[in-house]
Amino acid sequence: MVSHFARAMFNVDRSSTQPLADQMVQQVIDMIARGVLRHGARMPSIRQCAKDLHISTFTVAEAYERLLALHHLESRPRAGYFVLVQGNPVVAVPANAYPERTYDYIWLASTQLMQNSHKLNVSTGNVPHVFDHARMLSRGLKRVAARIDQDTRWYGGVHGYEPLRGYVQSLLRDRGVRAAMDQIVLTASATQAYALVAGMLAEPGDSVLVDDPGYYHLMGHLEARRLKLLPVPRTPDGPDLDVLQTLVAKHKPKAYFTQSLVHNPTGSYLAPHVAYPLLQTAERAGFAIVEIDPEGDLVSGSVTRLAAMDHLSNVIYVGTFSKSVSPAVRVGFVACGAERAQRLVNHKLLTQITTSQINERLVYAVVTDSSFRRNLARQREWYLARGAEVAEQMQRLGLDVFAPPRGGKFLWVRHPAVDDSMDISRMAEPRDIVVAPGMVFRPFLAPTPWFRLNVAHGDHPRMLSLLRAVSRL
Amino acid sequence: MVSHFARAMFNVDRSSTQPLADQMVQQVIDMIARGVLRHGARMPSIRQCAKDLHISTFTVAEAYERLLALHHLESRPRAGYFVLVQGNPVVAVPANAYPERTYDYIWLASTQLMQNSHKLNVSTGNVPHVFDHARMLSRGLKRVAARIDQDTRWYGGVHGYEPLRGYVQSLLRDRGVRAAMDQIVLTASATQAYALVAGMLAEPGDSVLVDDPGYYHLMGHLEARRLKLLPVPRTPDGPDLDVLQTLVAKHKPKAYFTQSLVHNPTGSYLAPHVAYPLLQTAERAGFAIVEIDPEGDLVSGSVTRLAAMDHLSNVIYVGTFSKSVSPAVRVGFVACGAERAQRLVNHKLLTQITTSQINERLVYAVVTDSSFRRNLARQREWYLARGAEVAEQMQRLGLDVFAPPRGGKFLWVRHPAVDDSMDISRMAEPRDIVVAPGMVFRPFLAPTPWFRLNVAHGDHPRMLSLLRAVSRL
Repeated sequence: MVSHFARAMFNVDRSSTQPLADQMVQQVIDMIARGVLRHGARMPSIRQCAKDLHISTFTVAEAYERLLALHHLESRPRAGYFVLVQGNPVVAVPANAYPERTYDYIWLASTQLMQNSHKLNVSTGNVPHVFDHARMLSRGLKRVAARIDQDTRWYGGVHGYEPLRGYVQSLLRDRGVRAAMDQIVLTASATQAYALVAGMLAEPGDSVLVDDPGYYHLMGHLEARRLKLLPVPRTPDGPDLDVLQTLVAKHKPKAYFTQSLVHNPTGSYLAPHVAYPLLQTAERAGFAIVEIDPEGDLVSGSVTRLAAMDHLSNVIYVGTFSKSVSPAVRVGFVACGAERAQRLVNHKLLTQITTSQINERLVYAVVTDSSFRRNLARQREWYLARGAEVAEQMQRLGLDVFAPPRGGKFLWVRHPAVDDSMDISRMAEPRDIVVAPGMVFRPFLAPTPWFRLNVAHGDHPRMLSLLRAVSRL
Repeated sequence: MVSHFARAMFNVDRSSTQPLADQMVQQVIDMIARGVLRHGARMPSIRQCAKDLHISTFTVAEAYERLLALHHLESRPRAGYFVLVQGNPVVAVPANAYPERTYDYIWLASTQLMQNSHKLNVSTGNVPHVFDHARMLSRGLKRVAARIDQDTRWYGGVHGYEPLRGYVQSLLRDRGVRAAMDQIVLTASATQAYALVAGMLAEPGDSVLVDDPGYYHLMGHLEARRLKLLPVPRTPDGPDLDVLQTLVAKHKPKAYFTQSLVHNPTGSYLAPHVAYPLLQTAERAGFAIVEIDPEGDLVSGSVTRLAAMDHLSNVIYVGTFSKSVSPAVRVGFVACGAERAQRLVNHKLLTQITTSQINERLVYAVVTDSSFRRNLARQREWYLARGAEVAEQMQRLGLDVFAPPRGGKFLWVRHPAVDDSMDISRMAEPRDIVVAPGMVFRPFLAPTPWFRLNVAHGDHPRMLSLLRAVSRL
């Protein structure tokens, strides 16, 4: 893991006339300038770096010493070397709303919001207009309007609108998770759900495990909370348990934030033979598992959910209506043990008093509409079909697909000729195509040849033409 | 200020046979048990405490030593003595949703949400059904429903729904505050606005100034963020500048969270002769002012707003539609300097991606409805009239009113026969009346004879009868 990072980071060339230490110094400065290395990122240790790059520790030490002197690194006793960016920003501040040249979590989240750009965005979760979300919302709003009374205009309970919590309870039952009503808390989106949960589980400075690659927004959020990210490599079957166990033994993390199903960005599914020892490790080591399941409504077939296996004793389950209803309503939920739910409710009360009762009534009106289930089924089939089509196209063009498509929005692909998908992002820019470099999905924005493709747009003729151009290089 | 705290905290009785140190130990244990002293509250220093109570430092040191041994206090080098509550909860966890016996920020926020309790709640912000909020919302929802399109169902921009931001811009202009569009950020309520702002301005462990008494929810939130509260006594004209300057010199706070108009809970207004030196102090000492103005729509006449005086250079202004439209929609806003607004937007992006476009469209539909202004004017008059009536009733019963009523929901009153308004809360309980003890509005829940009265319910016959019973004691 760490060794992988060191190799991905430095590209030392023995045949060059430039001394190796000089090359390393230059590469770190470049990566900081490009935003690849962010403030506070931990550097590989001198010994580890020397070992991975097959160079002497003396060379690495010399490079690090110079970077320290240049204030590009700082050394913390017993903790190692960390990247120093002038001005010490927690999060990069883009100069404008669409800063093509600053690829980071904020950048990707910003492009995600843009629906009407003239650019072709093949990386974000932008969904096509093929479903009737707008009509469903409009009908739902009319139903809510007809039922407004004097109570509706008040705050509502802190757990959230009770009928919708009842619906979540039955949804969870369908997913094999039994939860009492007081274990279900509505939140303003899944994003806010894991923000509340992170605030409950960890203090600034604490370590948390995350998937590598994983959901970029989650990593940006946890970093902004000053939590230390411990990246667990994602295999097509789930987390790499060997690495996870090493990290757990060394860093005593407070939680593991993970996505079991249609994992973002890889599209992979957790396998039962990984799930079981994972739960055991978490229980033994005393860290919580936060299972984020934003696509829960869209998966089909037999799947493995951690929350269903452990019945919410140590798993905190996060869901959302952003995919099935609309991201414009901002309604999500948390299901967890009763004691944790009470703490979460108090935290919610102190952060926002309560969530919008009107939005929650709107979601309830939509999900109880007779057309809702049909619409979901249509979406499920559409994503399955699109995933298969785009994956086939990619393979025909010579790209690798990380995990076989099984529903969900994204494929995680790489071009064998490309070492860093940033190169593809750069080639895409003048063609008015937005390809997020895969590093945006990695803790510390570490470079990677992989990148994420939305199945709705991934085989657009312009994108295919770009990939052919990549092949010709 | 600190001395006031020491005197309010301990009630040492020289005529008692019980040694003074014993009395002090017992009183601290009692206050912890009652929830008056919370985990992490700072105790007065030994010297200060001895001075204020006119007892020897030896006695105080003895009491503190015993409390340390009992693990009710902890001593932090160079920082002083802090209250230790077993289990180390950040926030008190009530055993049920309506824990009459645990009076704290969470308790009051919970009762605030309850609309249909059989109890008479004279303390919360519960508004009567005299305004047409429900009908306005219903009409607004229908208008939003008619205009839903494919874009509406998507996230929307991170700053929030643009037409509503335009409305906020004109609202601010009416209030004497000029702001460019990119200085206006919509949030999911004022609560969430100051949560975002606090996250931007201060790190855990930093100090912030707050009004004493002040908005209970704000204090609960800032405490949960592990910020150190520095209480600035509120006079009828605004903050006590002498105390404020002493605190600033000593603690170098990052921000001052304050409410200039219809201050909650005292109903007082900031006077211009206090506003000006306050702004100067903040600028010189380098801390930001967060001016929270939830009742901005309901004030009338000539008022002093810090944001209008400094034009958002060092003041961050927070508003909400919870009072004028409905707390069920959860829409508020922040206006601040352009650079801060960009940082705030990034922070918003990482915490919740964006706010609900549907709620924001709903608010826009309501505020642009022809009936909206009439309704606001009616509310304004109603609160003015009610405030005058209830204040007169209170004075007739012998109570003191902190500031003359000038609109707004609350009066801050005290009964001369009562040293701690907790006594009134206790008497109210068996009568099914909820009176929040005034300490809930104070940092560290320090006791006070004052308590908050909602003008909608403050002169309910049952409340008047309770106050007469207090007078008879």
